[in-house]
Formats: sequence, structure tokens, C-alpha cells
Amino acid sequence: MAYFADIERVQYEGVQSKNPYAFKFYNPTQVVAGKTMEEHLRFGMAYWHTLVAGGADPFGVETASRPWSHYTGMDLAKARVEALFELLDKLSIPYFCFHDVDIAPEGDSLREFYNNIDTVVELIEQHMKQSGKKLLWNTANMFSNPRFMHGAASTCNADVYAHAAAQIKKGLEVGKRLGAENYVFWGGREGYETLLNTDYALEQDNMARMFHMAIDYAKEIGFDAQFLIEPKPKEPTKHQYDFDAATAIAFLQKYDLNNHFKLNLEANHATLAGHTFQHELRVARTNGMLGSLDANQGDLLIGWDTDEFPVDLYAATTTMYEVLQNGGIGRGGINFDAKVRRPSYAADDLVIAHIAGMDTFAKGLTTAARLLEDRVFEDFIDKRYSSFREGIGADVVNGKATLSSLADYALNNEQPRANESGREELLKATLNQYLVTE
Amino acid sequence: MAYFADIERVQYEGVQSKNPYAFKFYNPTQVVAGKTMEEHLRFGMAYWHTLVAGGADPFGVETASRPWSHYTGMDLAKARVEALFELLDKLSIPYFCFHDVDIAPEGDSLREFYNNIDTVVELIEQHMKQSGKKLLWNTANMFSNPRFMHGAASTCNADVYAHAAAQIKKGLEVGKRLGAENYVFWGGREGYETLLNTDYALEQDNMARMFHMAIDYAKEIGFDAQFLIEPKPKEPTKHQYDFDAATAIAFLQKYDLNNHFKLNLEANHATLAGHTFQHELRVARTNGMLGSLDANQGDLLIGWDTDEFPVDLYAATTTMYEVLQNGGIGRGGINFDAKVRRPSYAADDLVIAHIAGMDTFAKGLTTAARLLEDRVFEDFIDKRYSSFREGIGADVVNGKATLSSLADYALNNEQPRANESGREELLKATLNQYLVTE
Amino acid sequence: MAYFADIERVQYEGVQSKNPYAFKFYNPTQVVAGKTMEEHLRFGMAYWHTLVAGGADPFGVETASRPWSHYTGMDLAKARVEALFELLDKLSIPYFCFHDVDIAPEGDSLREFYNNIDTVVELIEQHMKQSGKKLLWNTANMFSNPRFMHGAASTCNADVYAHAAAQIKKGLEVGKRLGAENYVFWGGREGYETLLNTDYALEQDNMARMFHMAIDYAKEIGFDAQFLIEPKPKEPTKHQYDFDAATAIAFLQKYDLNNHFKLNLEANHATLAGHTFQHELRVARTNGMLGSLDANQGDLLIGWDTDEFPVDLYAATTTMYEVLQNGGIGRGGINFDAKVRRPSYAADDLVIAHIAGMDTFAKGLTTAARLLEDRVFEDFIDKRYSSFREGIGADVVNGKATLSSLADYALNNEQPRANESGREELLKATLNQYLVTE
Amino acid sequence: MAYFADIERVQYEGVQSKNPYAFKFYNPTQVVAGKTMEEHLRFGMAYWHTLVAGGADPFGVETASRPWSHYTGMDLAKARVEALFELLDKLSIPYFCFHDVDIAPEGDSLREFYNNIDTVVELIEQHMKQSGKKLLWNTANMFSNPRFMHGAASTCNADVYAHAAAQIKKGLEVGKRLGAENYVFWGGREGYETLLNTDYALEQDNMARMFHMAIDYAKEIGFDAQFLIEPKPKEPTKHQYDFDAATAIAFLQKYDLNNHFKLNLEANHATLAGHTFQHELRVARTNGMLGSLDANQGDLLIGWDTDEFPVDLYAATTTMYEVLQNGGIGRGGINFDAKVRRPSYAADDLVIAHIAGMDTFAKGLTTAARLLEDRVFEDFIDKRYSSFREGIGADVVNGKATLSSLADYALNNEQPRANESGREELLKATLNQYLVTE
Repeated sequence: MAYFADIERVQYEGVQSKNPYAFKFYNPTQVVAGKTMEEHLRFGMAYWHTLVAGGADPFGVETASRPWSHYTGMDLAKARVEALFELLDKLSIPYFCFHDVDIAPEGDSLREFYNNIDTVVELIEQHMKQSGKKLLWNTANMFSNPRFMHGAASTCNADVYAHAAAQIKKGLEVGKRLGAENYVFWGGREGYETLLNTDYALEQDNMARMFHMAIDYAKEIGFDAQFLIEPKPKEPTKHQYDFDAATAIAFLQKYDLNNHFKLNLEANHATLAGHTFQHELRVARTNGMLGSLDANQGDLLIGWDTDEFPVDLYAATTTMYEVLQNGGIGRGGINFDAKVRRPSYAADDLVIAHIAGMDTFAKGLTTAARLLEDRVFEDFIDKRYSSFREGIGADVVNGKATLSSLADYALNNEQPRANESGREELLKATLNQYLVTE
Repeated sequence: MAYFADIERVQYEGVQSKNPYAFKFYNPTQVVAGKTMEEHLRFGMAYWHTLVAGGADPFGVETASRPWSHYTGMDLAKARVEALFELLDKLSIPYFCFHDVDIAPEGDSLREFYNNIDTVVELIEQHMKQSGKKLLWNTANMFSNPRFMHGAASTCNADVYAHAAAQIKKGLEVGKRLGAENYVFWGGREGYETLLNTDYALEQDNMARMFHMAIDYAKEIGFDAQFLIEPKPKEPTKHQYDFDAATAIAFLQKYDLNNHFKLNLEANHATLAGHTFQHELRVARTNGMLGSLDANQGDLLIGWDTDEFPVDLYAATTTMYEVLQNGGIGRGGINFDAKVRRPSYAADDLVIAHIAGMDTFAKGLTTAARLLEDRVFEDFIDKRYSSFREGIGADVVNGKATLSSLADYALNNEQPRANESGREELLKATLNQYLVTE
Repeated sequence: MAYFADIERVQYEGVQSKNPYAFKFYNPTQVVAGKTMEEHLRFGMAYWHTLVAGGADPFGVETASRPWSHYTGMDLAKARVEALFELLDKLSIPYFCFHDVDIAPEGDSLREFYNNIDTVVELIEQHMKQSGKKLLWNTANMFSNPRFMHGAASTCNADVYAHAAAQIKKGLEVGKRLGAENYVFWGGREGYETLLNTDYALEQDNMARMFHMAIDYAKEIGFDAQFLIEPKPKEPTKHQYDFDAATAIAFLQKYDLNNHFKLNLEANHATLAGHTFQHELRVARTNGMLGSLDANQGDLLIGWDTDEFPVDLYAATTTMYEVLQNGGIGRGGINFDAKVRRPSYAADDLVIAHIAGMDTFAKGLTTAARLLEDRVFEDFIDKRYSSFREGIGADVVNGKATLSSLADYALNNEQPRANESGREELLKATLNQYLVTE
Repeated sequence: MAYFADIERVQYEGVQSKNPYAFKFYNPTQVVAGKTMEEHLRFGMAYWHTLVAGGADPFGVETASRPWSHYTGMDLAKARVEALFELLDKLSIPYFCFHDVDIAPEGDSLREFYNNIDTVVELIEQHMKQSGKKLLWNTANMFSNPRFMHGAASTCNADVYAHAAAQIKKGLEVGKRLGAENYVFWGGREGYETLLNTDYALEQDNMARMFHMAIDYAKEIGFDAQFLIEPKPKEPTKHQYDFDAATAIAFLQKYDLNNHFKLNLEANHATLAGHTFQHELRVARTNGMLGSLDANQGDLLIGWDTDEFPVDLYAATTTMYEVLQNGGIGRGGINFDAKVRRPSYAADDLVIAHIAGMDTFAKGLTTAARLLEDRVFEDFIDKRYSSFREGIGADVVNGKATLSSLADYALNNEQPRANESGREELLKATLNQYLVTE
């Protein structure tokens, strides 16, 4: 059946279109910097926000009006699968992502949960075959159930740890069956509420143990997806262990996991940690750890995770700039980990909001590509650091310099090279010019 | 001469004293947990805030009234040395810390700067011998001079890089001469204002190169101080590379520097990064990286570095709790990187503020020691994590578990161990009881 | 029946007690500054957090284990009433507070809701008579139901506005029947998500109209409670109209409502607005608007409303300092608008957490009273501003000065009065002395 | 003489121009919504940032290279006047703004300061006559000098209060002489560092007294400028009394000053207070208090006032949207209270940065004008609130409704009007379309 019968498959109509159900920037087959937009952007839909969530917040119940919300139990689970593939089709989104609990009810036991998952996965598999849609990544939700109140891989309760392991095991099996490109770990309860009751060292060690077991099991079953850690600094937990990209990298290095993992970076998580999204991307790509993106945006005047659909052209441009500099997003994608505002409760807001996000990234892509083609920042940077390509600077880079040789140079350097202006205002004004032109 | 002639050496008078120039909690010879307070706390005075700074802020000039402020040039430099040792003596503070530019004017050339340093260092050395006071750490200021506008070890200008190296070289020599326990690197301009003009990867590499050169030179001259990196997330730079403890550790691991460095952690830097100070200490000590402390406090409703003298008993208690758990602060100390408020401009505010800070840490020490002696948190934590000392939990910790074994266990675990309450409110109320009693 | 049969009525045992179910500071009959602790503190219990909520957060479902949670519908409503009065009794808390939806299910129609309310109110009334417990305030929840997605008194939908009015009308009637001391308005959805779709001026006007109608109706039915507005800057709405005390006062002044309202101030709302709680209290009392307190605390490193039980002795001391300076809290009280942490899910955590909060305020009260008795801050302030009690300063205060007379004075004032140190460090260290002594 | 001899008068060259010294959007004579860009925007240059400041920050000295920086004393003061008018001319900026201390050295006495001011004002007057440039506003700097460490109008020292009055008196005289359109009060030290030493009520009263005296004196000398208060929440002071627009309005209402003042709103001050700039503008215009704008931008991940040149097209568009809705900025203007980044230290960065800011506002203006012309948001809002133009909604607006009539309506309203989606995502996506097209 069709849940969005009134909505046609969304078409590209260009920037002047006044049709709310049309793309203004996203033209999947348009070639940008040698690839189509579709190939660059690898958009994904987030099962939880789009098929499951309903607009509840800490001060109010759900508002969403969804054409499948009269169902319950496994019927609801199946209806959501149908709605997913209809939306993917109508929006020309090639990928989707889910947590285990998004697709199937937990039931009364782990065994029942496994069975429910199997039933729904079979349905998903059929739809995937028919539609050609693909699984960008799946994951296990180890934060909503009360059992995880003290954490999952970082819990103080060994039985809960075992349960978490069982969910991950099943998740890896599901990922393999559905050909997932990636498998994600987001540790919503991996952290602490207060250090007064926390064995921080044991919790860190246990998390590393779980990751190693996951790697081993994936190898055992021949699941070769890219493993991703998704950093977030806080919320729901007061402090989360994967605070930001650098913290996750420190952890992965310490426990000899860095060759097995990359990062799934989320815009709103970056800003909650005090960083721009571009910063997190830069840290990751400089460390060879850029895995995949959760596309959304926060409100920087707000201290919690608002997961808004991305509509900021500056952020989209700098994001795609980093992705292009990275040589693309690889096996990752751009997953809309975003939810419609609570008052945007109508079913077609889901369509409109994805269009908004896809258009924003499409415009970000074309702007970033033109900036790179014209080497707007690259030429500036090349010149700026040119002193490290000759003389004493080259000695530094080549490892020939010592404190003594540098001090000698400095002592005898009667006319040191003057600094040049960083030209931040000029560069930002130039970015504006690129943004408002084609 | 005496700059604080009206102030006697500060004595311990106990908590009921109304004498502003007496200690209420700090009793240097009092034994706590097996050591004297003096041995535990290893207080240091910060040359820059106490001898040099004058209360200027971005909207106003200096307010401070200092009995040595009529001097200029090298006379001022010498007067500050005298004032330092007088204050150390009157406050019974055993250590001090300085940047190169704190003790000597830069003059018109690097050579002149070296000479000025040598002159003042000789004077400091004499005072140290006479007084028994010691150098906790020294460092090079590579952020105030305009040449460092684009960074020092992360500059885009190779000649500036060489100058920075020359300052570090001299700093290491001075440290060796004065028997410094530690040598500190704080990268106030090591970061970026905007990624649009920044070669992030080169800057990181160059920083690592500088650190390696410093290690090599210290070895060459036989200077065996502990090397410390001091993280700070931002300010003056928009983003600083040593954002927090975890970020610094990631960097040190990546560049094979982690065996050569520990961390100098500062309370106000922690909160600017979104962490409690206790968190930063816990991260560092869990990684074997707890080096030394910069004691101060910020205002959590304020977004910049206020460097207030520490007067929060909660923070002091949790800080000393971590230090005691670490087996002490080692070669590090507790340096008052703190400044009197701009309207606290009188000379004796310097004395009063240090008393406030020392008393706060003394009370924090005794409270933490009693909490540990009574195992208030330890017993709770031991019980909380007890499931990892037996059965399936022990298998996890011992490396015997796999995803499959854990999943089997979970599937057949009909009565999983219930979670127990985290008791955060009880633990915090208990902390209050300890805080207000002796 | 008894839901907390294992817990005796909580007794005062003093600061050395290790009994988690005893007061360490709160001794209801102890006289402080001329009144008993009970008279000063007028504690209230919050129905929503303690009887209704269960620890859900945006990333997880309820964890709470409550002995009444097996009931549903009106049975649950009645069980909660019983549990309330049992807890009030066991904790010696004299007051309680509720929203309409806390006490009764909304049912399928407004009429049914009215009926449900009437049924439960009758039960509450009986319990009040038997126990002597009193209603500090009641209010209408006009933020949880989906109908309020765009606001209640500031909605764009006139039918929703009418519904809100009907809830307020009933609330005023219930308040009168139960002898409420106050009636509260908290506008959780009175604000906007984006100005792009908002008629700000109309929304403000309509809010004022609703308040005037409420005043008129209260007068009509002879309900003479104190009306209170509760400011909060944001959450759930991106921007809420009653941002903070000053903003609420501006609104009340503009719409000629300031003689009919006072403020219900909440600690965590203050910090979310960038203020200390003491600041909000000072603003309110200076404007004669200090009405009542919602006692809790936030985590200043966290950007959302955590509503923790208050355990910070500094905050409690400065809060009670303002209350004492205000001549008491009047018809208001200290309502624990606080929830146990999600992992503190056990039923007795409710008891423990209230003890923690009550003890914290009791200690804050005694400390503030001693500070005032000794005029620690008052004498300092008197001296500090003494120049405004004589000469040119007195002319200013008495309205005799003009710019010209002041400029003449300044031009001819050859030795202007020097500023004196603000002594912030000394005052804070002195506060510490008072805090840790009796 | 010419300080910027190498730079021609800046011309409009259009969005494709690659000339850093050309306008890409600002075309002064272009007509938008019935007025020229020049008439709409009324740009002003800030004396302090552009002619005086040099890039110092709390961790570093000045970096700026200014062609007039070799002068000192009154020669420097005169050189800055020449540089000002040259820059105003080259940038086609019609207005400027200054503090008293920006234009003249304070000297050794108030009398000398008056004399210095008179000398420079005469020079400014001559340049104004020759050039046709105008004074948007002037003000007195009552925050930089140490005497103001405890405040100016809110000081605890009556002699300092008198000195502040003398500066304001002179400022009003200077404003009258130079035909200033406005006179501004920004209270950088009007606030407190800690409430522990503060007589908040007296300080507020004294501030109001000063404002009344200023009104009286302006009337006395026939100076009819618009008086403006400039809110800022904090920095340099921990809490500033004019926290935001609403707080300033509350103060002005309380002290019967609201008919004599409007607000000078600054973007970076808005965000430091937790608001968007659009919010502050909306509050002000709804209260008839929109006076003038300080154009700049902050970095929302940074907690201090960065005063960056405005380059955010979203902010500029929503700002100009509010200004257009206000019927223009009246006697106010758009003053670039912005400074070049410390590493943008070259003299021509001043020109480039102003171009960036002017272009940003020009593009914001044209985008806002098109949005209004097409009634993009207006039609949506009209429809959204239509229920308040008929039936029960009209009764509310017309004052005919009561709680009883509304409750009756609600009780009998069997099919309440459904809420409609707020369409935030659609509106923001539409804004993007307008932003990137002409």
C-alpha cells in the first residue's frame, strides 16, 4: 500500500521552483567534479527519526501524524518497512540505516527479539532486492532499555554486558545478511553520571574488550563492513566516553583498535562538543579516520541535541569541502540523522524536510567543488606555508633541524621573514560570493 | 628591601580566625594520610599573575597597585625577583613557575633577550640558594609577541618557528640551571582562527617535530625534568590543538611522544572544554599522564578564562581525591595559575588570595583523605562492579569471553542480575557531611 | 496502604549520622533567626517528579520502580494521592504542588478531565484534612498535550487558546477549593521555535489577555492566592517568552500586570538563562517580586534542564541569604522541583533525595543566618558605599545633583576619593569558613 | 596626507568581481524597496576598532600595522581624524561613532581631557563640513580607566560617579556641536563581579538618576539626539545590568525612562545573552524601542565578545527583515562595531573587512526585501493566526472573552480546529532559495 499516495516521486525543478515537493538543487545525475551528485552524496534515511519517532520531548508527548501509526506490534514493524521503501523511492534516497529496536519489537525475551528481527529482516531483504536500495549501516540500540541505565559495554552489571554482546552479535549477523556497508557503535549510555560512583578504568577496558570481540566475530562470520564509532560528548549521559573525534581516536589508539575503526561524525554532536563540524571532519581525515556522516544541525544557542534537518549552506559547503578533500566519503554516506520539528508534525513534513536537507547538501557540494576547482583556499594556503618548502623550513619538515640549528638560525637572522595577514575576512567574503552564485 | 613590610609571615590560626592574613586550614606540618600537608600539596606561585600582571582586561587598563611598579626595564625585572621571594617566604610557598618573558625583558633582539634572561636567572639562583625555594617549572611564552600571531610550533612562518625553537632551547637550559622539576608547553597560539586558511596536517606534524627536538636537546644537556603539555580548548585562539586531556593524549600517542610527556592540567581550562576538573584528572591518571596542576577556577556561567583563585571546596576535594588516588602528584605540584579580580587591586590582595587558595586546597585534602580512609566511595564502587569479579563478568575481564559465549549466556539467563541504584544523591549528600565536619 | 512500609518517619540525627534515612541538618523545630526551620523553609513536594515521572529521557524509557506503578487510570491516580501523603508524612514536608494532569487522567474530553479532577481533588481534600498538609500551589499543564504544540496562551489556534483558558479556570477553582497559597503559570510552550513563522506581538498580547482574564476570574470566585509566573529561557521551546526574572518583569510592567503577579524562581532555569540563582532572587526581591522557589540544581556543564535535587551548599546558602534579606518567602515556599537521576531508580531514592535537598537547605539557612547575624557582608557593603551617604554622594541620592553640579565637583576635585579593593577573594574565603563550621 | 594612498575609492563591481577592493553587493545608489541602499543602511564606522585598536588580546600585545602608529599624543589623535575621513571617503561610509577617549588623550586631569577633546572636535568639525560625513553617535568611555573598576553610574565611589557625570556632560555638548543623531550609553562596568559585595538596589537607582540627569541636561542645552542604551550581558563585568533588550526595557519602564530612550542593539551581545540577533530586534521593535544597530558577529562556539566583521548572510537577511518591518532604522544606523582578526593585521584588512561587512548587509537587504515583496513569511503567518480574526479568536483579541466564555466554548467544541504544521523546514529551505538567487 502507499502511505504517501498524494506525493509523486520528487523531481529536480531548479532553484526557482515554488513546488514544495521538488528538488531545487539536488539533481542526482548532474556531474560535479567528475562524479554524479548521487555518487558523491550517498544519502541515507534514518529509520528511527523518520519511521519510528513521533515528536515527543521531555515536556510533551508525540505529536506526529503518521499514516502507519494505527498499527501495533509486528504489524507496525512491517508497515514501517513498507513506508521506508516508499519514502526512499519517492525521495530517490539510495541508503538507509537502523538500530535493531527500530525495526522490531523487543518482545519479552532476547530470544523473541531475535525472532522478531529475523522476521522483519526477511521483509527488508525482499524490499531491498526489489528496489535496489541498500543498507548504509545498522547498529544496536543499547541505551533506551532500562537495563542499560548504567551503560552497556561500560555497565557495572555483567549480565547487562552479556545482553549487549548478544545484541551486537545479532547486529553483525543482520548486517552481513543485508550487505551493510558499515556497522556503527554509538555509546549513548557509555559514560558516567558522576565519577563518585564510577570505575572509569574498568569501564574503558571493558568497552575495548567488547570492540575486540566484535571485530573477532565479524571476521569469524565474514562480515567485512567498515566499523564506525560515533562520538558524542554528552546527552543522555552527563559525560560520554567518545566525547569527540580526538577522544575516540585516543581510545582507539590506546587499545590497538585504530586500524579496525573509522568515525561516524554527526554535526550536532560536534557543536555540543564545542567544535565546528568542519573541525571534526578535519581531525578525522587528517588521521585517516573519516568514515561516514550523520547529517543534521543543532542550534548553537541551545545546549541539547536538536537533530534538525540540515539547512545551513555554510556548514554544508565546508562539510562537502572536507569530503572532497578526503577523496570522497568512501564506504560511508550522508545519513539524515535528523527529525522534523515537533510542530512540523504532518506526514508530508518528512518529505519536505528530506528535500531541504538533500538540497542543502547538493548546493554545498557544487559550491565546494567550485571553490576547489578555482583553488580559492588552496592557493592561499600554499603561499602561506611556502617557507616550509625551502631553507630552514624545509630542514624542519625533513627532520634535519635541531633546537640548536634553529636557535643558531634565529640568533643570526637579522631580517626575519615578516608574517603576512591571515586574510580571514577576505576568505569569508569570497566564500559568500561562491555561495550565492552558480 | 621589603615590599610587604606590613605583613608578617602568615601563620596557621585555625578555622575560627578572623585574621585575614592567617591560614584557617593550611597547616604545613599537619600530617594527613601519612604525609605533611606541605609534602602533599607542593604549592607553587605563578610569576606572571602575581609579579607581572596588573588587572588589564579587553575593556580596561591595569588597576593593580604594586610596590614595585615604579621600576622599569631590568630594574623592574630585579624588583620582581625580590618581591617573589618575599612573597614565597611570607606565604610558605615552596615552589614557583615562570615564562621566559615574565622574568626578563625581550629587548631588541634574541641575543639581548638571552642576556637579560641570564642576568635575572643568576639573581634567581642566588635567591633560591638562600631561601631553599624551588622551581616547579618554567616555560617559554610563545604567544604574546606579535611574531606568534599565526602560532609558534604551528606557525606558517619558518623563521618564527626557528625563533620559537630558540626560546625553548634557552628555556631548557634555564630549567637545567635552576633545577626545574618540570618543563611546560602551553600552546596559546597553537591552533587556528579559521580552517579556511590552515594546513592542519602540517601544523600538527611541525608541533610534533618541535617536541621531539626538545626531548633530544634536554637529553643532550642532561636536563631530566618531566615534560608537560598543558591542554586548553580555546582562547586566545578559536581552536587550540591541545583541546583537553584526551586530545593531548591522542596527539602524543600518534607521534610517539606519550612516554616523554605528562599533562599539566588546569581547572579553568577543563571547564572551558566542557569537563569538570575531576574528569580531566581522571582521564590523565587512568592513562598514567597526571603530571602537575594549575590551580584556579573559572565561572561556569562565563565563557572565557577567568583564572580565579580557587575557593570552591567541592572542586578542591575532588581534585585532591584524584591526586591521592594517583599516589600523589609526583614531581608536579599545585601552581596557583590564578589572578586577583581586577577590583581586588591592592597589593595585600595577593597575599589574601593565596591564603584563600591554599586554605581551600588544605581543606580539600583533609576531606578527601577522610573520604578515602572511610572508603566512602570505594566500598560502594567495589560492590557496584562486583559482577565483573566472578562468573561471566570475570570471563570478560580475563579475556575468555566472546560475543558468542556472551550471547549464549544472555539467551539462557532467565533471571538476569537486576541493576542497583546508582545512589548519586546519597553519595553527594554524604560528601556534604564530610565537607562540613573535621 | 503503605507504599514505603519499610521506611520510618525520618528523624533528625545530626551531621555525624550514617543513617541514609535520617536528617543530618534539617531539624524542623530548631530556631534560627527567630523562627523554626520549618517556618523558614516551607518545603513542598512536586507531584510530577515524585509521584508521576519515571526516569524517561529523550534516549530512554522509564526506569523507575514505584510501588504504585502496577495501577492504571483512576486507580493509579488515587494510588498516587495515597503515596503523596505517605511521603509528605514520612519526610515531614508540609506542602505539595501539582499540575492538573499530574493528579488526574485527561480522558477523552475536557468534560471527562473535569470530572476526573473533581474525583481526585475530593480525595486530596480528605487527605489534607486528616494530615494537615497544605497545597503550596497548583497549575495547569499546557505544554504536554499535542494540542499545545504551537503554544497555549500564545498559540496560533484560537480553539487551543480556549482549551487553555478552560484548564486555567478549572485550576483556579481547584486552587480555591484546596486553599492553595499560590497559583503558578509556567509557559513551557509559550515562545517560538522560529521567528520566521511567528506573530510575536500578537502572541505577547494574547498572553497578557489570558493573565488578565485569570485575575478577573480569581477575583470573581474569591480565590485570593498569590499569582506567580515562572521564568525559563528555553526548553522545550527554543525561546520562551518568560526568559528570566527581568524579562518577566518587563512583560508584567508593560501589560499592567505587575501588581497582580510575583515570580516563582527555579534554580536550574536561572542557570540556563546565564544567571546564578542568587541573581534571579536579587532581581526579584529588589523589584518586590520574590514569590516562591522551585528548588533544584542544574549541571552548569550541561545545556538542558536536569532538575537535580539541590545538594550544593554554596547555592543553598546564597539562596537563603536572599530569602532572609527578603524577610522570608512570604506565602511562597521551597518546592522540590527535582527528580532523582535516572539510575537512582529505586523507590527509596525518592526519600533519600528529599532528605539530601532538605538537609542542604537547612545547612544553607543556618549558614546564611550566621553570616547575617555577624553582618559579614553587610558591614563591608555599608562601608563600601559610604560615600553616597554624605557630601556629593548624598546629593546624588537625594536628587539634588545635576550633570553640571557633578561636573563642577569633578573638575575641582583635586584629590578624588581612591577606590578601595572589592575584596572578592577575602569574602569568598570567609564564606568557606562559615560553611564548614556551625 | 593619505594613509591609504594605494587604495582607490571602492567601487561596486558586482558579484563576479575578483577585486578584493571592490564591492560585490553594495551599490549605494541601487533602489531597493523604494529607497537607495545608502538610505536604508546608513553605515557607520567605529572609531575605536578601526582607528584606535591594534589587535591586543588577553594573551598578546598589539599586532596591527597602521600607517599612523608612529605618532603619539595629540599628533596621533589628529592623524586618526585624518585617517578616519580618508577611510569614510574611500569606503563611501556616511557616518562614524566614537567614545570620548577614542578621539583625545585623557591627559593628567579632567580639565586637560576637556581641552584635548575640544581641540580634536574642532578638527573633526572641519572635516565633517568638507566631507559631508556625519556623526551617528558619540558616547563616553566609562570602563577603561582604573577609576571605573567598580562601575561608573553604578560605582560605590561618589567621586567616580561625579567624574562619570562630567564625561557624560561633555559628551552631550560634543554631540550637540557635531550634530550627532544619537547618544549612546554602554555600561561596560555597570554590573557586578559578585553579589557578596554589591548594593544592587542602590546601584540601579543611581544609574537611573544619572540617566535622568542626562535627559535634563540634553534638554537644557537643546541637544535633541535620540538616547540609546546598549545591552550586553557580561564581559568585562561578570554580570552587566543591561543584560539584553528585555532587561533594559524593564529597567527603563521601572524608572520612567522608556519614553526617553531606545536601544542600540549589537549582534554579538545578543548571542552572548543566549539570543539570536533577530530576537533582540524583534523584542525592541515590538516595544517601539529599536534605535540603532552595532553590526558585527560573534562565534557561537566562543564565550566572549569577538566583534567580528559580519559575514553571515542569514543573520544579515533576518536583521534587515526586522529593520524593513520596522519601517527602517530611523535616526539610527548600522555601525560596524567590529574589529579585524588579530592575524588580519595589515592596514588594508581594514578596507577589506568593511567591504565584507557592507556587502553582507547589502545582500541581506536585497534578500529581505524580496522575501517581503513576495510575502513569503507574511502570507504564511496571516493564515496561521487567522483563527484570531473571527469567532472566539476575535473575541479574545477584542477583549470580549472571559475564562468562563472560553471554557464554555471549549467544553462544547466537539471538533476543535486542528493545528497545522509550523513548516519550519519548508520556510528555511525557501529562505535558502532566496539567498542564492537575485
